[in-house]
Amino acid sequence: MIYLFILFISLSSCTVAHQQNSISRNEPCKRVVLYYHDILFGGNDTANATSARATNGTGLGKFVLGMLVVFDDPITKDQHLHSTPVARAQGFYFYDMKTTYNAWFTYTLVFNSTEYKGTMNIMGADMMMEKTRDLSVVGGTGDFFMARGIATFQTDEVEGFKYFRLKMDIKLYECS
Amino acid sequence: MIYLFILFISLSSCTVAHQQNSISRNEPCKRVVLYYHDILFGGNDTANATSARATNGTGLGKFVLGMLVVFDDPITKDQHLHSTPVARAQGFYFYDMKTTYNAWFTYTLVFNSTEYKGTMNIMGADMMMEKTRDLSVVGGTGDFFMARGIATFQTDEVEGFKYFRLKMDIKLYECS
Amino acid sequence: MIYLFILFISLSSCTVAHQQNSISRNEPCKRVVLYYHDILFGGNDTANATSARATNGTGLGKFVLGMLVVFDDPITKDQHLHSTPVARAQGFYFYDMKTTYNAWFTYTLVFNSTEYKGTMNIMGADMMMEKTRDLSVVGGTGDFFMARGIATFQTDEVEGFKYFRLKMDIKLYECS
Repeated sequence: MIYLFILFISLSSCTVAHQQNSISRNEPCKRVVLYYHDILFGGNDTANATSARATNGTGLGKFVLGMLVVFDDPITKDQHLHSTPVARAQGFYFYDMKTTYNAWFTYTLVFNSTEYKGTMNIMGADMMMEKTRDLSVVGGTGDFFMARGIATFQTDEVEGFKYFRLKMDIKLYECS
Repeated sequence: MIYLFILFISLSSCTVAHQQNSISRNEPCKRVVLYYHDILFGGNDTANATSARATNGTGLGKFVLGMLVVFDDPITKDQHLHSTPVARAQGFYFYDMKTTYNAWFTYTLVFNSTEYKGTMNIMGADMMMEKTRDLSVVGGTGDFFMARGIATFQTDEVEGFKYFRLKMDIKLYECS
Repeated sequence: MIYLFILFISLSSCTVAHQQNSISRNEPCKRVVLYYHDILFGGNDTANATSARATNGTGLGKFVLGMLVVFDDPITKDQHLHSTPVARAQGFYFYDMKTTYNAWFTYTLVFNSTEYKGTMNIMGADMMMEKTRDLSVVGGTGDFFMARGIATFQTDEVEGFKYFRLKMDIKLYECS
């Protein structure tokens, strides 16, 4: 009987080891849904603007390929621009396609709320014409120490080049 | 006898857990060899060009340090530019050395073929004067969900600033 | 008795599997402290300069938001600029805030010393006003094959836009 008991412990401990390290596509160890707001600087709206063109489009195609925008954008838990931000997104995106609008992002989510302190580092292609697109969470610090996962983008609103809002559904598959 | 049988199951399950998570330098869990083609926009070759200068060189040294090129480049399985692309590479590179040509890349491989759907996110130094150089695959989505590994670059052809081709030997050591 | 012996082996093997794959916040598997020196090109100091502006500030705020600097900077083991470099840092940073100086980095540490050969790829927000800030080591090659960890920045010296030195305390939590 004692053998069976020890065996049971042994089996349990293996199962634990296995679960902590295997990656399940279905069950993230943490999930956060956030909204990203980008207000592009037009020249005299300094008070509102949260991002600015570091370079203009290159002339290859008609979709501002090469226009690179540096941002420090507010991140909220709901869709409202004026909700209290729970994080900032610091980084840049640029447009990269000659046949349509298509972008590429790399940035850090800097959390400084009662709920979370720390950062997530994210990069990937933003195929704007797709309904949803997946970027990679490649690292994290603080409450997101060593995190990895997927950030799914969905366009929530676009007002020309002036304002856009993305829904970011962030699923971590490596937590600590 | 039944004890031994259960013990055997227990041992097997541990071994599996262990193998799935250790990283072997010798045996990637997936390997893909691809060719990357870059045709730099010259001003009036819109139809052919796949990349464009977002910034010019800075004047520090004679090797266009600071020239940053945004690209949406075709990726083929063989060396031929006009083979059907299996992926696009979206991202940028820039030159960063004052004493020789040396570059730095960050990009996403966007696969959309019968074989693969999904992305790989890659970054690293391209020490162009070395025969081969290793960059990092830092994340992936879709068929490359949560991938990590090494992308080994080898210069395959260079035609001034007009065209170059890289062989990318991508070895994943974390698959899912 | 033999059952107990096999059980013991089984338990040990599980424990090993578990330890190799769990991430401890307290004990990095490798730690390297380095100093990063950046000498920004002023126009006629080519011999000394190690970095250059690819873009200028955008005019959004008074803290050069959008100024992007490409670098190939020497990395030393002590604070002295003229010590023999153990690595180069190749990549860029840019300023991204309208209310203060704040930067974002992505770069590769290229090691070529007797001690280390290989690279580490690093990215993240550099909140310059904080005493220390954590960036992510998202990949590595050579001696740092498949590495992940945290790079903690601390400002060590600043001479306007001409020179600055950072202490980089790099802690790897995934080694191979």
